[in-house]
Amino acid sequence: MNINNKHYTTIWLNENDEVQIIDQTTLPFSFNILTLSHLTDVCHAISSMQVRGAGLIGVTAGYGVYIAAKDFSKQNKLSWLDFMEKACTKIYQTRPTAKNLSYALERQSKIWKKYSFEEALPLLREQALQIAQEDIDFCKKIGEHGKELIANIAKKKNGQPVNILTHCNAGWLAFTDYGSALSPVYAAFDENIPVHVFVDETRPRNQGASLTAFELGEHNVPHTLIADNVGGHLMQHNMIDLVIVGADRVTRNGDVANKIGTYLKALAAYDNNIPFYVAFPSSTFDFSISDGVKEIVIEERSGNETENITGYFYNKNGQKQIQEIRICPEKTKAINFAFDVTPQKYITGLITERGICNATEKAILALFPEANQ
Amino acid sequence: MNINNKHYTTIWLNENDEVQIIDQTTLPFSFNILTLSHLTDVCHAISSMQVRGAGLIGVTAGYGVYIAAKDFSKQNKLSWLDFMEKACTKIYQTRPTAKNLSYALERQSKIWKKYSFEEALPLLREQALQIAQEDIDFCKKIGEHGKELIANIAKKKNGQPVNILTHCNAGWLAFTDYGSALSPVYAAFDENIPVHVFVDETRPRNQGASLTAFELGEHNVPHTLIADNVGGHLMQHNMIDLVIVGADRVTRNGDVANKIGTYLKALAAYDNNIPFYVAFPSSTFDFSISDGVKEIVIEERSGNETENITGYFYNKNGQKQIQEIRICPEKTKAINFAFDVTPQKYITGLITERGICNATEKAILALFPEANQ
Repeated sequence: MNINNKHYTTIWLNENDEVQIIDQTTLPFSFNILTLSHLTDVCHAISSMQVRGAGLIGVTAGYGVYIAAKDFSKQNKLSWLDFMEKACTKIYQTRPTAKNLSYALERQSKIWKKYSFEEALPLLREQALQIAQEDIDFCKKIGEHGKELIANIAKKKNGQPVNILTHCNAGWLAFTDYGSALSPVYAAFDENIPVHVFVDETRPRNQGASLTAFELGEHNVPHTLIADNVGGHLMQHNMIDLVIVGADRVTRNGDVANKIGTYLKALAAYDNNIPFYVAFPSSTFDFSISDGVKEIVIEERSGNETENITGYFYNKNGQKQIQEIRICPEKTKAINFAFDVTPQKYITGLITERGICNATEKAILALFPEANQ
Repeated sequence: MNINNKHYTTIWLNENDEVQIIDQTTLPFSFNILTLSHLTDVCHAISSMQVRGAGLIGVTAGYGVYIAAKDFSKQNKLSWLDFMEKACTKIYQTRPTAKNLSYALERQSKIWKKYSFEEALPLLREQALQIAQEDIDFCKKIGEHGKELIANIAKKKNGQPVNILTHCNAGWLAFTDYGSALSPVYAAFDENIPVHVFVDETRPRNQGASLTAFELGEHNVPHTLIADNVGGHLMQHNMIDLVIVGADRVTRNGDVANKIGTYLKALAAYDNNIPFYVAFPSSTFDFSISDGVKEIVIEERSGNETENITGYFYNKNGQKQIQEIRICPEKTKAINFAFDVTPQKYITGLITERGICNATEKAILALFPEANQ
């Protein structure tokens, strides 16, 4: 998608065959491109969240294996297999719970375990590019399917914009391009269907206020920031036509783990008869579990993320200063769960690369019959 | 209640017959007392939220009418009635949603409409003090009634603390003393019933993180800060026993206007069979309306309050610096509704100074039969 009228993906190979990324830790306050030349750069990029989002983490891991492999000939201590085993373990340990990360590592391992350094290198490069391209293709298809939902609502609105609520960032910054929840929005916008997005701030890490607002703004999509508390009121007053969120994990019966607070928006949408959709590539399914509330272990992060918040101000010298501030008394401590689970009964439908289905085991297995084998 | 081991109310008349208040815009970062000598000070204090909270706004309005009246003799353009009409309109316009504000103005108007300046002045002063004392008495009674709910849950918990979720600040800082939603908590705590409060941050103005956390901390009540997104997850996992919130306006059938986001917590409580109570003095009732969602006009405040946030950090000189920072891109704009309405069907009960009743017209009128006359 576009930043300042120039097309970008979140990650790419430059002409020197190095990986380049948009540094997401400083967005939206400052736009920087980083070069990942070696394994240590790749590991740091993932662990420090310079790249984040399920899709992008996987793609970065794919590139990371290739980048690591290139350095094999610069040492003579380890064998090819030992060298690669060690490198992949390091990448795996950056965000061990990210499903797409291990998926990309496994795919690359089939190459380096089978071929010699010289034979493997071009194949690892090719497959890294392929993993990225698949991510792009899947997100693009999610956009095409989801766009129909928006187009159908637009028909009834006589030129008034379709108001879409989203939570957290499931845009192109979380993938390689297009995104999941925002891909339908971009697809509609690019076809001149009038859209307007209400962006949940998404405390505590503010991925909405920082990343979603940034990427929509750079692509010129009309949007309005709201505190996470506001969505229910907007729904009660017919100011939301459609909710689309992303997902971190989806069970076989359609329960959805996504950024904390998603469940509250689903309840409000249900109470006000507003369609609530979840968009994600099928790699997000976890067909091994059914009851999301009971079975999905929710990551608990540091309370510091809630007690403090980062933004910018202009200091006495007129310089933009990025600053973390504390927003509560010194002795007050916070608890910080990263995700919650939305039970499937509150979800209108799931938007995947294969199409849209109800959030039920029957409908999911009809679209993904291989999960039943 | 106490701050730094000294007893305070949120508002009082000093020996010079001026109104003094605790400036709530700088809490918890800095504790300052302000003097309100004229109508403009009073209006600024209410509109800029140096005083906030339904009860305290009403009490401030009561004092404000007296403070305004004192300046009548310093001008000769307007008649007594015109002067007071104009002053009261200005006070009224500071915060349109607050029911207690118009209630206090109406009570005072019965004096200034009936008596001359000289006769009215001491009566206005007396009634301002009386409104404040009633606020204190009513809040204390709310605490006594609500404490029984907590005590009953505590009996089943074998010494484990009763976990109470609250939203925004409906503590003593929102009234003159004791508070509404927190009054039962203080009453239980003071009788050694084990309690623990989950404090919703309450974006955008963070009254939870700043005021509720501050006052609970000063009273040594165990509490944990959470982002507004977290409450639903806690309820799904049996980590909340009881929700108590305050109210800005309550309709005759029990719909409740309260801080934006209250509705979302009520939906989650309902979905998880957790008792959801609303605590308020009966002056919060608006018996003239029934359907809160349709009939209550919700105050819309500046988007700046969402785009920016205030906290503190330690600067290069090691000094605590209170700083507002911007948390979203320059070109992103926010929309900011201050309240939402929770329909009565999601409310377990109402805690008033007369006792606890169901959130139904029948139950409310049984407790407040004078409203039917």
